[in-house]
Amino acid sequence: MTGRDGGADLHPIGNSPVVVLVRPQLADNIGAVARAMANGGLFELRLVAPRDGWPQEKAWRQASGADRILEAVSVHATVAEAVADLQHVYATCPRPRHIIKPVLTARGAAAELRAVCGRGLRAGLLFGPERAGLDNDDMAQADALVRYPLNPAFMSLNLAQAVMVLAYEWWSFADDTPSRTLMTNETEIANKAELENFLAHLIDQLDACGFLRNAPKRPGMVRNLRHLFQRGEVTQQELRTLHGVVTELAIGRRQRGRLESE
Amino acid sequence: MTGRDGGADLHPIGNSPVVVLVRPQLADNIGAVARAMANGGLFELRLVAPRDGWPQEKAWRQASGADRILEAVSVHATVAEAVADLQHVYATCPRPRHIIKPVLTARGAAAELRAVCGRGLRAGLLFGPERAGLDNDDMAQADALVRYPLNPAFMSLNLAQAVMVLAYEWWSFADDTPSRTLMTNETEIANKAELENFLAHLIDQLDACGFLRNAPKRPGMVRNLRHLFQRGEVTQQELRTLHGVVTELAIGRRQRGRLESE
Repeated sequence: MTGRDGGADLHPIGNSPVVVLVRPQLADNIGAVARAMANGGLFELRLVAPRDGWPQEKAWRQASGADRILEAVSVHATVAEAVADLQHVYATCPRPRHIIKPVLTARGAAAELRAVCGRGLRAGLLFGPERAGLDNDDMAQADALVRYPLNPAFMSLNLAQAVMVLAYEWWSFADDTPSRTLMTNETEIANKAELENFLAHLIDQLDACGFLRNAPKRPGMVRNLRHLFQRGEVTQQELRTLHGVVTELAIGRRQRGRLESE
Repeated sequence: MTGRDGGADLHPIGNSPVVVLVRPQLADNIGAVARAMANGGLFELRLVAPRDGWPQEKAWRQASGADRILEAVSVHATVAEAVADLQHVYATCPRPRHIIKPVLTARGAAAELRAVCGRGLRAGLLFGPERAGLDNDDMAQADALVRYPLNPAFMSLNLAQAVMVLAYEWWSFADDTPSRTLMTNETEIANKAELENFLAHLIDQLDACGFLRNAPKRPGMVRNLRHLFQRGEVTQQELRTLHGVVTELAIGRRQRGRLESE
């Protein structure tokens, strides 16, 4: 969406989960995973038996500045080695079968990870190889599985997208931005008196130009205009603009009237 | 995460939002966007002035089977033309400035889109070009902006990742999977009597082998074992395995005892 920024300093925040890519195949994906991790505030990446070895220059090209994550990558021979120092391990798995295990949504996993990390415990997230996903032995090393709610008719999820969804949920859990707000910058949302003041100006000019001359219809027409301007939050700046619009249109009409009467 | 599947039939579901890519630069990204859309149950893709023209073979290679979406793509000269038949338009924008506009989180936008689409209205989601994002004129055509809660120290979000997050939120809104459940397949979660029956078996064998011979410590040791097995949901299948484990260990001990006494 935008160019690179903040590559050098990604602002790590406290104890966050480790991302473990198990037998990843494509260096491009490893780079894209690092970028997604930085987006969501995850900073520690471990690789188990990457197919083409490590480091790979291609990864840096896809990381879009999340270099610090790639530079700190550790490589491990087995999942057991990669998770040895962790207390909790969650394994992403789109279609688990023949296994007895807790299954969490991505949001549920984020909530548990926040709780676990908040207690000072170290947690890890396992992601399987691009084509096959995690195998049964990988999953047996996890406390719980994570299965995203996604279209069951099309479950082919890119590796970096899988990391993105969990990183996004991890970040979102701690975010308290209101789901809808009005961005107003330097101006403020008008109060009802300011809105009424504009409506009085508008109606005054509409009376003057004859737009409201039909007396029986006038109350309904005024009400409809009022409904329209009451529908959303109007800012003081927008009201100033609207006052100007009405004034200028009225002056135009008066001048035209003067020209026609000359 | 897994190989391709369901490419031919992506199970469209009712009225869902249109994704509009404004001046996209890379065909790879357009393909990855189609894949992310299919993951989240979005099916209609429109392009405004794609830099390298359309169609582009590269897009199909990144779509991982979401061909139906690419084949139905429409190309438009302007944003106005691309959104002409829509009633609601939301524009994704990581850092809006100097603009008076409602701003939604991705989750807030998904909730509104569900409501709007549920009323039979057509909605669209604008995504800007990879490097620059949407410009001010693009944003002026939207009802509201969407800003994801993500790490402000690293906002560089890949185009397909941006689509993925909203597609995921769109799907999640209508999903009611419990945030944590225990997958048990054919077996069931044991009740307390079944668990108690196993604990009695275990304690009986531990008494027999002398593990609990320290009488003052015995109650606490038994309680600790009880705490451990009560901690999570144990299934009937797991209890059968545990019964077998205890029995076989005890037989092993008895045989060893017999060998030693011979």
